Amino acid sequence: MRYGYLGTMRTRPGGRDEVVRILLSGQDGLRAAGCELYVVGTSETDPDLVWVQEVWRSAEHHQASLELPATRAAIAEAMPLLTGEFHAQEIDVVGGLGLS
Amino acid sequence: MRYGYLGTMRTRPGGRDEVVRILLSGQDGLRAAGCELYVVGTSETDPDLVWVQEVWRSAEHHQASLELPATRAAIAEAMPLLTGEFHAQEIDVVGGLGLS
Repeated sequence: MRYGYLGTMRTRPGGRDEVVRILLSGQDGLRAAGCELYVVGTSETDPDLVWVQEVWRSAEHHQASLELPATRAAIAEAMPLLTGEFHAQEIDVVGGLGLS
Repeated sequence: MRYGYLGTMRTRPGGRDEVVRILLSGQDGLRAAGCELYVVGTSETDPDLVWVQEVWRSAEHHQASLELPATRAAIAEAMPLLTGEFHAQEIDVVGGLGLS
């Protein structure tokens, strides 16, 4: 079963666009690590929130990716710009259109 | 700016898998209508909830798709199985991996 992850992270005021840049810069190894989808977005309704939608080949692939050097570096770089308020939802991906 | 849509719909007890089937059966015209991603999922943490993640070429493409006969038929077929509790979040998709 493919593993989906929906998350938000709250940034300190003015930090959102930098966090988005960091998240989008750390993608190099994701495909090889089993990532099928990694989408970063924002919303006018809450300008300090960053949304991430991910689909992985399995939950184990996602978990292992957190140990990748590029992922760890991105997390370390973004942390000072975040408030620490995270929300996450794990999803069992049943199917759909547009996944590789 | 690509348009993202994150939504949940609550199903009547026991209706979830049928709603998932309906949602996944109505995909034929989506790609031509400007849909880049349409993912349907479920979660063990709430067995009566269906999650939908969508990415469209634009908000206008998404809006227009709601008038497609296949979309209208899917909505009509699913409605009796739903409680009427929906949550939706529109997202400005900044970028990512895995979108076509």
